[in-house]
Amino acid sequence: MTYAIGVDFGTESGRAALVDLSGGAVLATSVVRYPSAVIDETLPSTGERLPDDYALQDPDDWVKVLKRGIPAVMKESGVDPDQVVGVGIDFTSCTVLPTTSEGTPLCKLKEWRNRKQAWPKLWKHHAAQPVADRLNEVALERGEAFLERYGGRISSEWYFPKLIEVWLEDREIYDAAAQYIEATDWIVWWLTGSECRQTATAGFKAMWSPQEGLPPTEYFTAAYPGFDHPGEKLGNTFVALGTKAGTLRAEVAKKLKLSESTAVAVGNVDAWVSVPGVGVEEPGTFVIVIGTSICDMIVHPEEVRLPGITGVVKDGILPGMYGYEAGQAAVGDMLAWFVDRLVMDSGSYGALEEAAAKLEPGETGLVALDWWNGNRTILADADLTGAIFGLGLHTSREQIYRALLESIAFGSRRIMDNFEEHGLVLSRIVACGGIAERSPLMMQLLADTSGRQVHVPEVSEIPARGAALFGAVAAGVYPDIGSAIEATRPRQVRTYEPDLDAKQTYDRVYEIYRTLYDTLGRSEVRLMHELKRIRTQRRDA
Amino acid sequence: MTYAIGVDFGTESGRAALVDLSGGAVLATSVVRYPSAVIDETLPSTGERLPDDYALQDPDDWVKVLKRGIPAVMKESGVDPDQVVGVGIDFTSCTVLPTTSEGTPLCKLKEWRNRKQAWPKLWKHHAAQPVADRLNEVALERGEAFLERYGGRISSEWYFPKLIEVWLEDREIYDAAAQYIEATDWIVWWLTGSECRQTATAGFKAMWSPQEGLPPTEYFTAAYPGFDHPGEKLGNTFVALGTKAGTLRAEVAKKLKLSESTAVAVGNVDAWVSVPGVGVEEPGTFVIVIGTSICDMIVHPEEVRLPGITGVVKDGILPGMYGYEAGQAAVGDMLAWFVDRLVMDSGSYGALEEAAAKLEPGETGLVALDWWNGNRTILADADLTGAIFGLGLHTSREQIYRALLESIAFGSRRIMDNFEEHGLVLSRIVACGGIAERSPLMMQLLADTSGRQVHVPEVSEIPARGAALFGAVAAGVYPDIGSAIEATRPRQVRTYEPDLDAKQTYDRVYEIYRTLYDTLGRSEVRLMHELKRIRTQRRDA
Repeated sequence: MTYAIGVDFGTESGRAALVDLSGGAVLATSVVRYPSAVIDETLPSTGERLPDDYALQDPDDWVKVLKRGIPAVMKESGVDPDQVVGVGIDFTSCTVLPTTSEGTPLCKLKEWRNRKQAWPKLWKHHAAQPVADRLNEVALERGEAFLERYGGRISSEWYFPKLIEVWLEDREIYDAAAQYIEATDWIVWWLTGSECRQTATAGFKAMWSPQEGLPPTEYFTAAYPGFDHPGEKLGNTFVALGTKAGTLRAEVAKKLKLSESTAVAVGNVDAWVSVPGVGVEEPGTFVIVIGTSICDMIVHPEEVRLPGITGVVKDGILPGMYGYEAGQAAVGDMLAWFVDRLVMDSGSYGALEEAAAKLEPGETGLVALDWWNGNRTILADADLTGAIFGLGLHTSREQIYRALLESIAFGSRRIMDNFEEHGLVLSRIVACGGIAERSPLMMQLLADTSGRQVHVPEVSEIPARGAALFGAVAAGVYPDIGSAIEATRPRQVRTYEPDLDAKQTYDRVYEIYRTLYDTLGRSEVRLMHELKRIRTQRRDA
Repeated sequence: MTYAIGVDFGTESGRAALVDLSGGAVLATSVVRYPSAVIDETLPSTGERLPDDYALQDPDDWVKVLKRGIPAVMKESGVDPDQVVGVGIDFTSCTVLPTTSEGTPLCKLKEWRNRKQAWPKLWKHHAAQPVADRLNEVALERGEAFLERYGGRISSEWYFPKLIEVWLEDREIYDAAAQYIEATDWIVWWLTGSECRQTATAGFKAMWSPQEGLPPTEYFTAAYPGFDHPGEKLGNTFVALGTKAGTLRAEVAKKLKLSESTAVAVGNVDAWVSVPGVGVEEPGTFVIVIGTSICDMIVHPEEVRLPGITGVVKDGILPGMYGYEAGQAAVGDMLAWFVDRLVMDSGSYGALEEAAAKLEPGETGLVALDWWNGNRTILADADLTGAIFGLGLHTSREQIYRALLESIAFGSRRIMDNFEEHGLVLSRIVACGGIAERSPLMMQLLADTSGRQVHVPEVSEIPARGAALFGAVAAGVYPDIGSAIEATRPRQVRTYEPDLDAKQTYDRVYEIYRTLYDTLGRSEVRLMHELKRIRTQRRDA
């Protein structure tokens, strides 16, 4: 009997899961909340008020997940440490931090801890938006080819906007940092003592590709004169997902109650590990991780460059395949807004779902644009805002709730249409994440609006499970991730069949959605932008 | 000392007010609810379920208002019956009923009372929409000039759609009716014993004009072959507002505790009597009656034919002037929807108003289209529905509430712009009605979005007061309504000054509103219509 442990680092907490590698069952789980959670109000070391759009974290919180979570699953399962052959981790991304050459986070050093640029920036730190705007502007001016790999636009959440923000705001921190590294790679470094970066975040978040490397230095200096060593904090060797980064350091093994011989896989990212976690390795399956927001993933043997995606990266999700990513910015967030902020009855989710499920397709008379948090793809426009059409004196709470769910489904269909219009055939949907488990109506709507089967694997701890599989590959239990997926594919799957009568009605509603989408998101987008500009100017006045 | 009584017949109740003609003060008021209120579920005589969009009333309820309300104000005020020289009444319109040649409502006769077409149809009876559609279609085909007086479109609420519905649905009732008469004229008939119709409802609701009479018979027969005596139930003599219809019948005077010599003015309509009621007689003042919905009125010495109004009628509001009417379909209704149906906290109006008043112009980031009940003017499209743009995770209840108020103000500005673009200069706004009294924020927004002063006369019972003034004119106390208005103009007026800084911001938001209005209400109106069609088809399936 062999086992692997996966550790899934989320936004508010980390989860460790111990997986039986003979069939993929999760034997024990432990959840550890980050004491400092998301640091977005004041800097812990000084109490200094943080600017808008800051979102930092404390690396000690992450280490706590390992030190508490792994011993907890070992104890709960009663497994012998020698039988735990591999560890894999996944993390939110792009979450990045500056470290010394030994891997000490600068924010943990007395010298630097009072400086906000020394702290890890969480994926949703958005204060580098002006940098991203500038980088996009110059990339368009110069006709930079790399942009095509990212659907035509880079995000403020990525590596270079966050790094250049350090360079602009606090040059001493920039100079003191030997590394500016993804948290996922930093955790692996902490576990093994060896710094080992992987191709996936380099590709999806740092604009690197195996063929082309980084964008040219002249591009960066054209945007930011003086920023002339773009790769100096990133490193230049990147290995494939599933590679063994090393084994546990002796003192770490002791603290984690594991054996020193345990293999550690290179770092990985929460959304991507869900693909092996749900048992998908084949092209043509659209994997939706649906929770606070949506991350969509497809693997495909060839590279197709298309607009309206977050990125396409070789070996980016599964080694040997091109990984494609897209997504929707507000999902669970938007539903929580409706329930907690508008209806103000946080106990009403179940009742709303039940009442909304009784309505017929088209019966609400409503169409919404799900842009409560901007549009991630296919428009990649953070300045878009949500809209509801068709309101009348008869409109009920559950009708609006259903219209919000429908808008999420239409947004997904728009993304799938975009892939199909560029030649990637999508035959089915596999969904996972909190809303896949909690909202059968949402799943049925994904089926009814797209005309595709939706499969929801009935398995817990999907990301941690996926991460553990990479740990198993690193340990050599499986020759590759494909074999690992095959051996551990979830056996219980809930299937939602598309209702073709509903599909016919939704085709009509979707035509309206798509026209409003194109009108307010493109041809008349100035209206939405002006609305946001007025609001921002008023707020700042 | 002389007095007059005005009786204002609303949708749910009637109000009598006794007015001191020396200065216009209201000395006593009495409200009488209609026991049957709006009959929209089952026919009282049979229990038969009524079709959708039916809204009937019981004439006995109206008589009850007179028999209880007038003695009540006489008693309360202690005024000598001989000093009450005139009575004026106003009614909702177009509320119409079939009667015998003696004025007995057919629904009060055993022979006919079980037939729904025998009952009075309330203004908001909408079951004649197919008739209105057909009449509009044929009028457009034939290029009927009369359409221009009604902004290009007639409403299902008006006289001929309701009458032709009787003719189509129950020919026996049609044949049995000697008269099909406005309720306002029927009440005067009941009071005086003489049938005396006036020009105002004939003009605004029955497509009649002093120069042109009714539309040609060929027009009606083109739409409905066989409907070849269009005027036979309407009569053909119409007198000006303020004319004395007669004096009280002896038995009526006794019951009402009034003198037989009391003059009774011809009937009038609730919105129109508000113009003298608030002391307006001059062109250039935009009178807004703002409650459940909005009725806008202007008087002007010349006739201008323009699209996007409900009508222009000579002597229609004040004798000697052209009266113009426009309006918005959902106002208090829409706010009640938000509070009672969405927020579900009917006690929160005050808190929402207070919180919304603290927000800055443009700060909500929202724009709404106030079409919860369709658009009355300038689009005259009942199939439009409401929309909210700019929603985000930060959006609060009070922001949406304020955006709804702003959308009402923008809708008013759109109507004022339309008048001004056709040459009617509007220098100020006078507002009355429930929302003018209850929402200072709404009044300030009307001022800030339009750049005009808003005056809210601080006087109660405005319609009943206006009706009483016509009673005074009928009694000869004043030579004309202008003199009556001058003598009784409200002395206390609350003025809202436009804030020019707010206006600048609102000009920017209004540009967005107007583009969305034109896009969704005109160029892309098929989207809204298709949305409603899908809903209706699903509901009827």
